Amino acid sequence: MDRALAYYPGKRVAITGGLGFIGSNLARRLVALGSDVLLIDSMVPDYGGNLANVDDIRDRVRINFADIRDVYAMSYLVQGQDIIFNLAGQVSHIDSMRDPYTDLEINCRAQLSLLEACRYHNPTVKIVYASTRQVYGRPLRTPVDETHVARPTDVNGINKLAGESYHIVYNNAYGVRSTVLRLTNTYGPRQLMKHNRQGFLPWFVRQVLDDQEIQIYGDGQQRRDFTYVDDVVDAFLLVGCTSHTDGEIYNLGGDSASLLEVVKLLIELAGRGRYRLVPWPAEKRAIDIGSYEADYRKLTAAVGWYPRTSLADGLREMIRYYEQRRQYYW
Amino acid sequence: MDRALAYYPGKRVAITGGLGFIGSNLARRLVALGSDVLLIDSMVPDYGGNLANVDDIRDRVRINFADIRDVYAMSYLVQGQDIIFNLAGQVSHIDSMRDPYTDLEINCRAQLSLLEACRYHNPTVKIVYASTRQVYGRPLRTPVDETHVARPTDVNGINKLAGESYHIVYNNAYGVRSTVLRLTNTYGPRQLMKHNRQGFLPWFVRQVLDDQEIQIYGDGQQRRDFTYVDDVVDAFLLVGCTSHTDGEIYNLGGDSASLLEVVKLLIELAGRGRYRLVPWPAEKRAIDIGSYEADYRKLTAAVGWYPRTSLADGLREMIRYYEQRRQYYW
Repeated sequence: MDRALAYYPGKRVAITGGLGFIGSNLARRLVALGSDVLLIDSMVPDYGGNLANVDDIRDRVRINFADIRDVYAMSYLVQGQDIIFNLAGQVSHIDSMRDPYTDLEINCRAQLSLLEACRYHNPTVKIVYASTRQVYGRPLRTPVDETHVARPTDVNGINKLAGESYHIVYNNAYGVRSTVLRLTNTYGPRQLMKHNRQGFLPWFVRQVLDDQEIQIYGDGQQRRDFTYVDDVVDAFLLVGCTSHTDGEIYNLGGDSASLLEVVKLLIELAGRGRYRLVPWPAEKRAIDIGSYEADYRKLTAAVGWYPRTSLADGLREMIRYYEQRRQYYW
Repeated sequence: MDRALAYYPGKRVAITGGLGFIGSNLARRLVALGSDVLLIDSMVPDYGGNLANVDDIRDRVRINFADIRDVYAMSYLVQGQDIIFNLAGQVSHIDSMRDPYTDLEINCRAQLSLLEACRYHNPTVKIVYASTRQVYGRPLRTPVDETHVARPTDVNGINKLAGESYHIVYNNAYGVRSTVLRLTNTYGPRQLMKHNRQGFLPWFVRQVLDDQEIQIYGDGQQRRDFTYVDDVVDAFLLVGCTSHTDGEIYNLGGDSASLLEVVKLLIELAGRGRYRLVPWPAEKRAIDIGSYEADYRKLTAAVGWYPRTSLADGLREMIRYYEQRRQYYW
């Protein structure tokens, strides 16, 4: 075991969104570390909760089906936890524009009620909140560090910014210790593959595996950085077990590539697939952020984190996973 | 009439929070300019709506009592308006910490529903949204310009930031033309004087007029800038009638002074009153932002606005007003 993670054995750990993509990968690591793991998930269709994500660890975790909007259930569930990895959220940008109220209820109101619950029922807990680079909107400069002004381009980015800010305010005003991670494009095994509204990369992987034509909007030159899910799990674990990260916001980052480069790499790795450049749909263009690249040096300085997995290695692993287990995800 | 304001005669103008402090002062100017003015106000106790604010123009405006949280009433009321000055809000920082949900409903959810109403029922309207320098939190540098990172210290600052961001996103994604003004400490006639949870300055004025002891937290060296309400009204009118302000965020500013200097000036102008330095209450210290001063050059460059009224002149006018009309405000 990494010495930095010696905190976790025997600790009571809750994960909201625990049956989702990142939550379930985190649960697997915590089980291996010997934590007492509680997974909380609403199983909202289309959000990513999937029991297949935990089928190999199901007898070593507790699962509680509840929605984080359920104030009373959450007030009970937070009690006695040493740490809460707070990953539950509405993550689709386009859904937030079509139904801004649901995004508000989940990404703002439910975050407030979770924090109020901790303030009154578990004030010594540590929370790590999963936020997003979407809060920055269209960058004024890249790489983007945490002092870059936040100008979200969509309702999801606005509400996630509010959600992370609540955590920081409750840390500073009430001592509910919280750390915020701003995730960029996370990818890997156990990611939702049923629709294309939670990021383009899993959808591209699905289309390659199905030997279908990938549609790339515009010229495909827009750049993103990609973090493999195991590296994201590392970041959560590392900031969760130290108090000097309390009240802080950190970017995650990873290998940078243009969309066109990613697609070509995917096709090469899978040995099948094809693509076509198509014009931007107006609805998506309106909220697009252009090119993005994170500066994650603050997180490296704080806990020694850096992304260990190359994009090629990560995609290879992702393809391998879904080739074996597509029936649970398609 | 200022030529820049030739837009307003005959225009249909709605003001949310129209019976409040700034809304009623704005209404008075719009009536003088010959606009067709609709005042929308919820009359939530303690928020600032006061019919005495409009008693001299009451036969020249229409008044509709409704809460901006009332989706259906608002969907009807926005129809046919040329411009909406969107001033309704929960403005107390300390109240937002005691009851974060109400702040969320008013400053986030109701803003979304107003924008959705405009998107579907009045897509060509222009909106000017009253935001606050509280979105910046504790400044990293002063004077603060609009590129300064927003790190609110309280729930109100977080939710107001979300509220203004919704306006910008609806401007950019749907063409619902919106301009955001970030107000600093506004003061003047028709300001709420009943309690001390909507800013310290009106409370200081009340205490001076009542010859009571003002309590200043800490050493009184924390600085604020102060904008007289007539200057704030000018800013709303100037950005409201031009399209090159669409999608933009502007700081307002004004004379800068320490709290101690303001109190001494007030006592001098009123010819009575006294003060004492007291320790910070923990609840207030936790959300205090330290010293703040706005850089408002972006607004000057855009529409020629600058604060015309000195702090001494503005306070003199404010004292004169409340000496004559205290029975409607105390």
